Amino acid sequence: MLGEIREQPSALLRLVEHDREFGRVAELARSRQRTLVRIVGHGSSDNAASYGVYAFGLLAGWTALRDSISLTVYSGAELEMGNSLVLALSQSGRTPDVLEYVARSRARGALTVGLTNEPDSELARVAEVVLPLSAGPERSVAATKTYTNSVAAIALLAAHVGGRGGEYSTGLRTVAAQLEDLIGDLEPRVAAMAVQFAFVGRMFVIGRGAEFTTAREIALKLLETCRIAAEPLTATGLAHGPVAALDALFPVWAIASDGENLAAVRDAAARARAAGATVVASGAAAHEIEGAVYSLPTPRPPLPLLAPLLSVAPGQLFAWALAQARGLDPDHPRGLTKVTLAR
Amino acid sequence: MLGEIREQPSALLRLVEHDREFGRVAELARSRQRTLVRIVGHGSSDNAASYGVYAFGLLAGWTALRDSISLTVYSGAELEMGNSLVLALSQSGRTPDVLEYVARSRARGALTVGLTNEPDSELARVAEVVLPLSAGPERSVAATKTYTNSVAAIALLAAHVGGRGGEYSTGLRTVAAQLEDLIGDLEPRVAAMAVQFAFVGRMFVIGRGAEFTTAREIALKLLETCRIAAEPLTATGLAHGPVAALDALFPVWAIASDGENLAAVRDAAARARAAGATVVASGAAAHEIEGAVYSLPTPRPPLPLLAPLLSVAPGQLFAWALAQARGLDPDHPRGLTKVTLAR
Repeated sequence: MLGEIREQPSALLRLVEHDREFGRVAELARSRQRTLVRIVGHGSSDNAASYGVYAFGLLAGWTALRDSISLTVYSGAELEMGNSLVLALSQSGRTPDVLEYVARSRARGALTVGLTNEPDSELARVAEVVLPLSAGPERSVAATKTYTNSVAAIALLAAHVGGRGGEYSTGLRTVAAQLEDLIGDLEPRVAAMAVQFAFVGRMFVIGRGAEFTTAREIALKLLETCRIAAEPLTATGLAHGPVAALDALFPVWAIASDGENLAAVRDAAARARAAGATVVASGAAAHEIEGAVYSLPTPRPPLPLLAPLLSVAPGQLFAWALAQARGLDPDHPRGLTKVTLAR
Repeated sequence: MLGEIREQPSALLRLVEHDREFGRVAELARSRQRTLVRIVGHGSSDNAASYGVYAFGLLAGWTALRDSISLTVYSGAELEMGNSLVLALSQSGRTPDVLEYVARSRARGALTVGLTNEPDSELARVAEVVLPLSAGPERSVAATKTYTNSVAAIALLAAHVGGRGGEYSTGLRTVAAQLEDLIGDLEPRVAAMAVQFAFVGRMFVIGRGAEFTTAREIALKLLETCRIAAEPLTATGLAHGPVAALDALFPVWAIASDGENLAAVRDAAARARAAGATVVASGAAAHEIEGAVYSLPTPRPPLPLLAPLLSVAPGQLFAWALAQARGLDPDHPRGLTKVTLAR
């Protein structure tokens, strides 16, 4: 896992080399007017799908949703998909119900695009088009470089749809360099911090807008590698009930990026602090979170929408370090295998 | 809270009296071809929104999504909504960002429908059409009857769109009678069971398809009234990472209804049991969950899609009873107020 976290900058650069392919798929979607984007995947891929809601909404004015796989595959709903672009995320290209979803949505008229590390997999055969995630072989059960490349791939595709492909491919190269420096800086810092969390059993991870994606992914890393009951919440969601569960032994991790969502994240962190919770802040605006006991700032990206590629790194490294501190093996979480065939 | 749980059957009957109004709104949406359904709300209303994905998908073949409020209200995304039906859920009709979302989506061309307990509220003024939730005044901070009436209202509207309004209004009346009996049966049972959970700090609540709605709502009740870190997961989602966090002190609540989703819930419960977790089963197919230590069966509804109106009751009553067992006041969770103005 640590090796793959460190490999993320080079994995991002590998992805950007396929910039033209992303441009061609964007052009195809535009020419066919597939303006409703259905994104499917499980685990970290489903987390990356959340990013698509914001990337397609903001860059292209298109509505994107994390579609329900079970509705189409198991319940047999007959949705009209002639206006739809399907993005199917599968690291291995072998996830059975993702494959079945692609086959059915294609039969219902969707333009189906598979995004996978394995362009020769079954996914490439069932989807109309395949785009390479280019993360390279991922051996750790807990996904890291595949997650960041999935987010970057969605950003690049949405940017091309919105006519900003060049700007985003350049931006992604800059982010890769920033991420390289960040990971080196963070490694010793998270190790010292993790020891303080050795006995924590519950956490909330708060994000908003595109950073809700990051909240979901950090929570999943904490669940699967550290066995913490970590739940992702939007800043507003925290206030609508869950805040009542907090106390001094129930820390809250707030992801703070610059922009229109910062005020709500600040408010949520203040609510958590008022409930007695220890607050951890990460992200480019981590210093704006008052009263944070731990702060893991990240660089400001060249384009605000690329912030999640940087703000996830503190969580990935913290999860790895905390697993060590708890005597767990982050590379082999109990009860998990790399390719999940669960229906 | 207990009084409002008990009031749910009569609240459902009050809702069904407005059947014709639901039929008229469905006809309006059909005639204007608003086949993309955007549902918004916070807390329990957002949970009920999950139900819309399945109800509109299965009954009408329409795509429904829990839309991001922040994307439109705070980030200013310019989504095309000329094909959209907006359902805005707000108990009080005063939730500020829901009101702002309705105003903006209406300006972008959406047919906006407000669903509220307060048909004279601000929501009724900003939305093009208002439908009454008819739950009556809700005083408990933890919503119960407003949640069930929101689910029922979505079912009724989706059924009218799909030309099955009569069948569903009759079905809802039957469910109201079933719920009346169920609540009386459950009250003594959950009280005895709750004592066993007095020291539990973490839980997963597993559902699938329309019952994912129920999983979300039960988890929220446990969070806000019992201060348990309860996270809702789909049956498949459990296998993609979170299962690694389970142990003997981390119970899993599985919601088992009849139909095509039961097999996956059974599999998920088996995985949880293999990880050492205590399994609680509820729903009409609770007896199908092997090895469940606690079982809270519910009646089989006249229409499978109405199952969530019954399967949520064990969770509501359990949360109320467990709050008592833990010395907490379920009517006044710490740090919450009835009308949340959080942005």
